[in-house]
Amino acid sequence: MSVDVAADRRFMQAAIALSERGRGLSTPNPNVGCLIVRDGIVAGRGWTQKGGRPHAEAQALDQALDRAQGATAYVTLEPCFHLSARGPRCADLMARAGISRAVIALRDPDPRTDGQGADHLRAHGVEVEMGLMAQEAAAAMRGFVLRQTLGRPAVTLKLGLSLDGCIALADGTSRWITGDAARAHAHMERARHDAILVGGGTLRADAPRLNVRIAGLEGRSPRRLLLSRLAAPAGWEHIARPEDIAALSGVDHLMVEGGAETAAAFLRADLVDRLLLYRAPVLIGAGRAGVGDIGLADLADAHGRWRLADERRLGEDRLEVYERTRSA
Amino acid sequence: MSVDVAADRRFMQAAIALSERGRGLSTPNPNVGCLIVRDGIVAGRGWTQKGGRPHAEAQALDQALDRAQGATAYVTLEPCFHLSARGPRCADLMARAGISRAVIALRDPDPRTDGQGADHLRAHGVEVEMGLMAQEAAAAMRGFVLRQTLGRPAVTLKLGLSLDGCIALADGTSRWITGDAARAHAHMERARHDAILVGGGTLRADAPRLNVRIAGLEGRSPRRLLLSRLAAPAGWEHIARPEDIAALSGVDHLMVEGGAETAAAFLRADLVDRLLLYRAPVLIGAGRAGVGDIGLADLADAHGRWRLADERRLGEDRLEVYERTRSA
Repeated sequence: MSVDVAADRRFMQAAIALSERGRGLSTPNPNVGCLIVRDGIVAGRGWTQKGGRPHAEAQALDQALDRAQGATAYVTLEPCFHLSARGPRCADLMARAGISRAVIALRDPDPRTDGQGADHLRAHGVEVEMGLMAQEAAAAMRGFVLRQTLGRPAVTLKLGLSLDGCIALADGTSRWITGDAARAHAHMERARHDAILVGGGTLRADAPRLNVRIAGLEGRSPRRLLLSRLAAPAGWEHIARPEDIAALSGVDHLMVEGGAETAAAFLRADLVDRLLLYRAPVLIGAGRAGVGDIGLADLADAHGRWRLADERRLGEDRLEVYERTRSA
Repeated sequence: MSVDVAADRRFMQAAIALSERGRGLSTPNPNVGCLIVRDGIVAGRGWTQKGGRPHAEAQALDQALDRAQGATAYVTLEPCFHLSARGPRCADLMARAGISRAVIALRDPDPRTDGQGADHLRAHGVEVEMGLMAQEAAAAMRGFVLRQTLGRPAVTLKLGLSLDGCIALADGTSRWITGDAARAHAHMERARHDAILVGGGTLRADAPRLNVRIAGLEGRSPRRLLLSRLAAPAGWEHIARPEDIAALSGVDHLMVEGGAETAAAFLRADLVDRLLLYRAPVLIGAGRAGVGDIGLADLADAHGRWRLADERRLGEDRLEVYERTRSA
């Protein structure tokens, strides 16, 4: 079979986009995306559903029916091959459906699969390619990957800032620094996380609802977490230290929303993977800083840690997304 | 004569680019740019020289010689028509050189010319168009325009910031937040200003040289100003209040470099026209803020004042240029 690399990349890109639909919903399973293509025509699309089932591959095969015969499957993560009471093994499903080629972005780091899914496919005559757009797929399934590799969720820190880095006036007023479009985008980001966390000061001062206020997406409001020495009120879960996020069940993507001391606590512990900076074209001057003491003693240590991953205009405001650079 | 508007805009754009060469050098005269074009071919280029003479038009005509006959002149400012002991009247020079068409961006707000240059050209049979790219030309000659309209120089405030808006660690360390490319760009900006100003705290703490450290441009190091209640050391000029910049002779473009209280004093007085934000991809946390108290009591008052005019990557850093929006 002659391989069209550009087409493979396009289809994998589409599978990654599908995987994003499950972000913040699919835990405890990874938010996988899958596309089944025969003769250049998409026969099935799937992404891991709420709560983790069905898996992306199962959903895509259900759509494709017998058009899966001889087709190519694009999957963002190696199909599972471990037995589960919750559903079938995807590698097995794919082989039985007659998939003839499987293009896989990321090898499953879960030790229960870890190459065995691909091996099973090969053993059934399926041509397997692994590694296409692995980095992009890993970014889309960041929470799952970090859970597997570092044993904790992926953490996004959101800051709404003036040009001079303030999150509020000196008296605490912060409504509004950013505009409607930026706030809507931040709500969309909430919907893509399993949980949102604030500190005790923010809870007491702002009593934030932390829900998704976008019509039709209210049901995707994430769990609410409180970082505090005190107990959490009803409807909130409580952690005492940033490191405690590792023990949170069902949280692969966590968004930290403030305030400055909470942001600093996560940064100090090097537990932030992604910064969302919503920046309004205003100057505040002598206001409240967005980030408290992160324990930086030498400017040289501040460099090389953050890489600009995305940026866009949101009305009058600008969003910059930075990712933590970590050696693999 | 049929007029090619797209060509007119291209040539005027070139004249504006020429005018930028004189920025920070041409005071007490405006940094005008001039292009003389005959049959689509550039016959002369000029920009107002150091100290204000020769004027852009005189220099361009000197290059064009008899090719000025029947040519079009593109000038960023209406040619002068007031008598001066320092040189000839450009409107007169142009008419005598046989220019047949004059495209002028900005009418000269100086009451000694203010339309008379154009009238003189017309009286000698020159076709005159005024207003093409007036806004862009005004931006390039911002200092002159503000001197004429508001009676003070144009002020640029430069800030070198971390992502969280700090200009230094809490102990004052600021070397280095931004990288080589950003610092070189800031030196280039210095060369385009007549004077640079810092506050007493910055002078005492950093003893900044404020010179242009770019090979070949050392001679363009601007005058050094100190905003302070105390007297200035040798080699420095002194002002006591931001408003005193109006009385500075020979300063049309002023750059304010810090620190936070000096920046705030100029912002509080609404004397900043342009912000240069050099932003490094680092977080500092609990460091020194870039802007002190600007007297903002209501967030609503902070909005609508700044417009993003330019942005670029400078190595790992980013530059954002904001301009103060003022009703005309």
